[in-house]
Amino acid sequence: MIELVLIGAGTGHPDHLTLQGVRALQEADLVLIPRKGAGKEDLAHLRHAMLARHRPDGAVAHVDLPRRDPSLPYLDGVEAWHDAIAAAWAQAVDLPQGGTVAMLVWGDPSLYDSSLRIAARLDWRPRVIPGITAIQALCAAHAIPLNALGGEVRITTGRQLREGGWPPDCDRAVVMLDGGCAFATLPPEGLEIWWGAYLGMPQERLDHGPLAEAAPRIEATRTAARAAHGWIMDCYLLARSA
Amino acid sequence: MIELVLIGAGTGHPDHLTLQGVRALQEADLVLIPRKGAGKEDLAHLRHAMLARHRPDGAVAHVDLPRRDPSLPYLDGVEAWHDAIAAAWAQAVDLPQGGTVAMLVWGDPSLYDSSLRIAARLDWRPRVIPGITAIQALCAAHAIPLNALGGEVRITTGRQLREGGWPPDCDRAVVMLDGGCAFATLPPEGLEIWWGAYLGMPQERLDHGPLAEAAPRIEATRTAARAAHGWIMDCYLLARSA
Repeated sequence: MIELVLIGAGTGHPDHLTLQGVRALQEADLVLIPRKGAGKEDLAHLRHAMLARHRPDGAVAHVDLPRRDPSLPYLDGVEAWHDAIAAAWAQAVDLPQGGTVAMLVWGDPSLYDSSLRIAARLDWRPRVIPGITAIQALCAAHAIPLNALGGEVRITTGRQLREGGWPPDCDRAVVMLDGGCAFATLPPEGLEIWWGAYLGMPQERLDHGPLAEAAPRIEATRTAARAAHGWIMDCYLLARSA
Repeated sequence: MIELVLIGAGTGHPDHLTLQGVRALQEADLVLIPRKGAGKEDLAHLRHAMLARHRPDGAVAHVDLPRRDPSLPYLDGVEAWHDAIAAAWAQAVDLPQGGTVAMLVWGDPSLYDSSLRIAARLDWRPRVIPGITAIQALCAAHAIPLNALGGEVRITTGRQLREGGWPPDCDRAVVMLDGGCAFATLPPEGLEIWWGAYLGMPQERLDHGPLAEAAPRIEATRTAARAAHGWIMDCYLLARSA
């Protein structure tokens, strides 16, 4: 029996790791390290730094991740991609007697991460060590509360915002997985944005303001930063102005 | 100038603390410790254990927190209460030359926590160290994703659910700050619940199932656990059945 420990590693600051995460990393029989992913070089560097610091001598296995087939319809493509990732994990793990395999997952394994769905395809028992999500890192960087007093918050995606617009009965929404600038597709009147990229990393970028003013600034910052670093991960909180 | 460092301490497991949180605790000139709050004894014990482990010799100041006046309308009562807490903090901190004051905040300072709003009443500069929220701890304990693939999630409160019912266009919602059992006021058909109390603590309790079956079980568990421990903190994820 393989136990798969998914360790929430935070959003890019090496000290986002929890004490529980450090211990799980140290106690695993094997650490599985994917070779591809968003922000390949910078994040791979960070993952290696975490291992060098907390588990300098432990066994690791690298796995080359397949790519998603962009010619398939979105959800079909994701399903086939997860099947292929599960097969790649199984091939990379050589523990005939069973044991504990750890993986560092960016952010938290529960939030817009597919590791649990991929693990469900294998006969592996999952255990989750929670980690700092981009939502917490965004609010921390701006030193703001996520919610208004006693109020609701939505967590949504760039795709939902682009296709559905701003939900009519919504006061606050965090937008994740936005490969573009879905905020720029909204009528900006009455909306305020708190934006952050590379949260917790040395190259962290932040912006905040009425959406009408901030949107063009953020688009320009995003383009320049993506060109400079070769990748970008960002998220933002949108709220109706008080 | 006082810098107030709000350290997300996680939901009750001593190792939910991040490495960043440990460092902030160690580097602060003073740690401010409230004497009251939900789960007074157990949480006070946990806070002291964290300090004893990470900052055995540092300066601490205790502060007796005022109580909220339940005779005032809810939001007015909260505003007056936060004013009184800010005054109590200011009185407890004796740093005439300025310095860094740290506070351990349960969960994360951005999520249904008032420390940032209270700090805004003082001439103190806030800094936030993100921490594990009950949402992550709940999903980790159940080893489930928070969101459906590419889907939205709402974060809401027991009060909102009790007063507004299940929102018509909602598929998944996490419910926080539910002093009662707001889930039991919903028509349970087609809803599934993942519930957790004392998340991360030795007395952690979990339940999961169709709401119709799980609701009475959870109500009974909740009553018994509250009687046994003298307090309870819980939250839950509700989702439309697939």
